[in-house]
Parts: sequence; structure tokens; C-alpha cells
Amino acid sequence: MKRFLALAALSLPLAATAQESEPSATPSSVVAAAKAEEWVAISPEDLLVMELTPDARGNPRTVVIQLAPEPFSQPWVDNIRTLASAHWWDSASVYRVQDNYVTQWGDVTEEKQLPEGVVSPDAGYASVLPPAPIMNEPVFPLTGVLRNAWLEQYARDGMILDEDTIREAIARQKGDSYASETAIIAGWPVGIGPDEAQRTIAWPIHCYSYIGVARGYAPDTGTGAELYTIIGQPQRHMDRNLAVVGRVIMGMEHLSSLPRGSGELGFYTEEEADLRTPILSVRLAKEMDAPPAFQYLDTSSESFARYVGVGANRDDAFYTQPAGGVDVCSVQVPVRMIGE
Amino acid sequence: MKRFLALAALSLPLAATAQESEPSATPSSVVAAAKAEEWVAISPEDLLVMELTPDARGNPRTVVIQLAPEPFSQPWVDNIRTLASAHWWDSASVYRVQDNYVTQWGDVTEEKQLPEGVVSPDAGYASVLPPAPIMNEPVFPLTGVLRNAWLEQYARDGMILDEDTIREAIARQKGDSYASETAIIAGWPVGIGPDEAQRTIAWPIHCYSYIGVARGYAPDTGTGAELYTIIGQPQRHMDRNLAVVGRVIMGMEHLSSLPRGSGELGFYTEEEADLRTPILSVRLAKEMDAPPAFQYLDTSSESFARYVGVGANRDDAFYTQPAGGVDVCSVQVPVRMIGE
Repeated sequence: MKRFLALAALSLPLAATAQESEPSATPSSVVAAAKAEEWVAISPEDLLVMELTPDARGNPRTVVIQLAPEPFSQPWVDNIRTLASAHWWDSASVYRVQDNYVTQWGDVTEEKQLPEGVVSPDAGYASVLPPAPIMNEPVFPLTGVLRNAWLEQYARDGMILDEDTIREAIARQKGDSYASETAIIAGWPVGIGPDEAQRTIAWPIHCYSYIGVARGYAPDTGTGAELYTIIGQPQRHMDRNLAVVGRVIMGMEHLSSLPRGSGELGFYTEEEADLRTPILSVRLAKEMDAPPAFQYLDTSSESFARYVGVGANRDDAFYTQPAGGVDVCSVQVPVRMIGE
Repeated sequence: MKRFLALAALSLPLAATAQESEPSATPSSVVAAAKAEEWVAISPEDLLVMELTPDARGNPRTVVIQLAPEPFSQPWVDNIRTLASAHWWDSASVYRVQDNYVTQWGDVTEEKQLPEGVVSPDAGYASVLPPAPIMNEPVFPLTGVLRNAWLEQYARDGMILDEDTIREAIARQKGDSYASETAIIAGWPVGIGPDEAQRTIAWPIHCYSYIGVARGYAPDTGTGAELYTIIGQPQRHMDRNLAVVGRVIMGMEHLSSLPRGSGELGFYTEEEADLRTPILSVRLAKEMDAPPAFQYLDTSSESFARYVGVGANRDDAFYTQPAGGVDVCSVQVPVRMIGE
């Protein structure tokens, strides 16, 4: 009977759903009401803390980065840990800011020697996934076949999620222009599709505030020493062409609000070299004396499913026309600092 | 025979297409090669020039805005023309900057009297479209039924576009999470879908640099005096809930790189009131002595179709993995200043 309820719910219109259940819920209110056990600690091995010089008013500018989880981009992520441990970015700079595209940092001279072992990985930009729709890592599917398998799984398991949540979870994303399917895997937005050998592969997506590895024309020329973050409309044709290795989880405004460079591709010209923002230090949290601590909302939790569903069907004091769907890059995984 | 060629092309894989035709073409090279007659002048009645105070280095900050074309949001657009003619924004300010969301400007006191006739329009956020897929205004469809009708129209008309262009034009956008279909109409990105009466309606979309009318909680409380522009990942659940009235076509960096406000929703607090950017003037180009002049690439032109197709199938010196599609907000309509 429970399974019947879950499957029958799939045909209900979403607008009606949103009106009948919690009409005043917003994504923020859902996150605020999440239970303590629905939050997952981010490992200090996956946190980078970048200190820029203080701003013109003397305020500190701290940028906190979460590194991408397995199985995504790990050769570059390993390089980044090595570079941070070697303090390689200390006295590096933010040297490129192109409007509606990227902010980029590293060694503007391109002459600084890399630590031993840091070379361009001979690796691809996508990972082969296990065939099962539910892997070891929690998957929150946003589209298509994977989503349907996920809903059936929940039905088989005796409906762990309540009926409203199941209902809201459907039709969240009607389609994607860049991937056969999209999902949140281990807290990370990914595209999914078949490769040439018809294996199921997944790759991390370029969303706002996500970080990638700059490279030259040849695909295998990036080490992770030069990094960029997306500061505008995500240009997702970059997916699978560049390695996504992390995301900014605090202090994004210190990278997005910098003056744009007037040189080609937004590089600061020599005449405006003073606009470059010096980097004081980049440290792995696990190597800091008093590291900050962060959690993200478990993307296999009931609150996360409700968060996505409510976001896709806003029907509150301000929004009167629910969208009925949400883009993968608009599903911002909630992150919070703890112990402040 | 020509029709057969066009339709047969629809089943060819896109990757092969991109490899076989112009492998080194980029969106920029396509735009650079567009013919003079493919560019459309923007009417001086549809251009607003906003002068902010110079930046910290003394450089002028000019922002040029193109107003949305008929049939979209015209009651608000009319208000905006009236406000500009009345010099209403002179000595107003940019008073809100929220990271990954919006920059907003107008009268921070909310007490300045509006010009006569400027009231909140009693109008909806979408427009009913004529039933024909090809209207008076040029339509460039990105998805679904409309796109197929458009391709058939070209086939019936004896294939105005060449075969490669037709081939590249297919499968550009595999789906959209917020609209049944998407298209560029009269140079403007729109969502398309049925309304409750099953009429075909279209609405302008919130993309990066697009401008909307700020309002209070009630949907009918915005006049156009307070405006915002999108400075991050477009939050398209705003579509159909707020009026999109224009886009920034020059000087976007002067709005996107401003310091973020630390108050709620990115408003500058009273303590940081000096961060507000004063607006010197906002003028309609048609009322200026020496107005700037702009053109946009005709979105029904062959070069525009090729621009979208090449953008969706990047296969050049840098990109080796074509996406096979493109999001409507990633299709940035090319605009250029003339007579510089």
C-alpha cells in the first residue's frame, strides 16, 4: 500500500502539491529546520583556507574552499593538497578577473618551481560509476532514469521519505542541456551520461563558485597550481574539458567583487599590476592550529529532498508562480560553519 | 530533395558534425565573420545610459542598458522611459549588492515622489503569443516543438540555411527546467509554455546581466523605479514572478564588481552607507546630444544560428569534448557598439 501511494503520487500536479503542503515553506526555512544528524562534517583534509590581503577598509579576506570528493578529479586534488602543504601559494596572487566568467589565481610569472611530485595528471575529466543507481556514496538524482530508479528504491524500502517529499521530489529538473542526467553525488553536482564504450560516467559540473584547474591549449597541461572560480553564468561547455576540483564555501565575495582586468581574457595588464590581489597564505585545515569547521546538508537526507522540492516549487509570501523545476546549478548544497 | 537533406540531417550525431565542418570555428570567430546586414540597430528609444560616479582611480563608469522589446513587460518599460525623461534617477544610488544574486539601484529612501503617470502596472509577467511558430518578430527556437516547426519551415522555404547550419542547429538545448520551450524572440531570451487557458505564452528570462523590476511582497507593487540586475547564477524561479525589463549591454562590470553589502539581502547597512554608489544620471539615448549607438546580431540570421551551433559543439584548439547542447542563458546575444 505504501508503494502504491508513492507511485500514484508521481502523477499529481506540482502546483497543487505546493499549495496543499506547507505553503509558506522556503528553501531557507527547510534548511533551518534540518535535524542535527542530517548535517555531515567536511573533513579537514578537504578544506583549504586562503587568506588574501585585507581589503581597502582593513577587513580580512578569508576564502574557504571544499575540495571535490572521490571519485572526482582526485589526481588534481592530491596535487592541490601537496601545493598547500608546501605553502606554494604564499605570496602568489589573484591575477585575472573576467566579468561573467572567472577569477583566477596562482603564480602570475608561471616560473615558480612546483613541489616534487606535482605534475599534470594523465587522467580524464570524468569517472566511471558503478552500475547500481544507489552506490556507496549517496546519490540525489535530478533527472531521468536515475531519478526514477531512486524513487522506486525508496518505495521498495518502505518509503523512507514521506509522501509530500516524494511528490515534491518529482519533476524537479525537466532536462539538462549538457548531460543525459544530473545528480548530486556525495554532496557534489555532477553530469551523468554514457561514454563511447557505453559505460556510465559522471563528471563534476562548473557552477557558480566552483573551482577548476586552469590549463594551456593541450588538455593535459594543468596541475592545479593555477586555479579559477566561476563568477557569472556557468559556462558548462567547460564541463569535461577542464578539471573541477572544489568549491568556495565561504568568502566567495572576496573573489567575485574584485575589479575586472582590462587585458585580454580579464588578465590585469602590467599597467594595472597593482590591482592583483596578493595571497598571504593557503593552508589545509588539517595542518592549521585552529582550523575552521564546516558541515554540509546530507544530500541523501529528507531535509535535502524537501529543500530541492520547495526550491523548485516556490509558493510563499513572495513567489506566486512556482517554476516546477530547478537547474542543477541552482541547487546550492547548503553549507554551514560550526563552532563560531 | 532539399527537404529530404534537411530532415535526414537531424539524425546525424553532433560530434561528427562538429569534426567535419569548420573544426576551428569558435563563437567569436562566427560573430566576427557575420555580414554587415546581419546586424540590427538598437533604437535610441530602447537605450538607457546610466552614469555612475567615477571609480577609485577616476575612471568613468558608464552602464548602457537595452530595454526589452515588445511584447514583453512594456508597461514597466514605459514607466522606465518616463522616469529617465524626468531625470528621476539623478542622485539616486546603487544601494544593494548581494553575492551570486543581484545588484539593485534606485531611491534608497523610498520617499522620492514618482513622476506623474508612473504607477504599478496592472499587468502580468507573460505575454500571449500568436499561434504561428514564425511570428512577425524573428524567433530562434532552442527546444522542442517550436524548434522542429522552425526547421520544417526552413525546409519548406527551400533551405535558406545551409546544411551544416541546420545540422548544428539541432539538439542545441536538450531541455529546460523552467519552461516547456525556450527561444530567442526579437533578440530576447524567453521561456514558452501553456497558460491555464492553454494559450501559448512567453516570458522574458532572468539571465546574467538582465534587469528586473524590484517589488514588495505583493506581485503588483513594482513600478520600475527600483531595478536590479543578475550578478551570478541566474535564479530562474524569479521568471514570471518579476518583470524583466532590460539587459546591460555595456559596463556590466561596474555593477557586478561592487562590494557586497553586509546587511540582510545584501543591502548596505547605515554603517557602510558610503559604499553606496551614487548615480550621476540616467538618460534615454534618444534624448542625448551625442548618444552611443549599438547593434545586435539578428537572431534570425544564418550567422546567429551558426553562433549557437558552434557554441553548443565547441571543438577547437581548447575544447575537445563538445557539449552537444547549450542553456538558454548561455546563448548570449552578440551586441556591438558602433561608430566608436
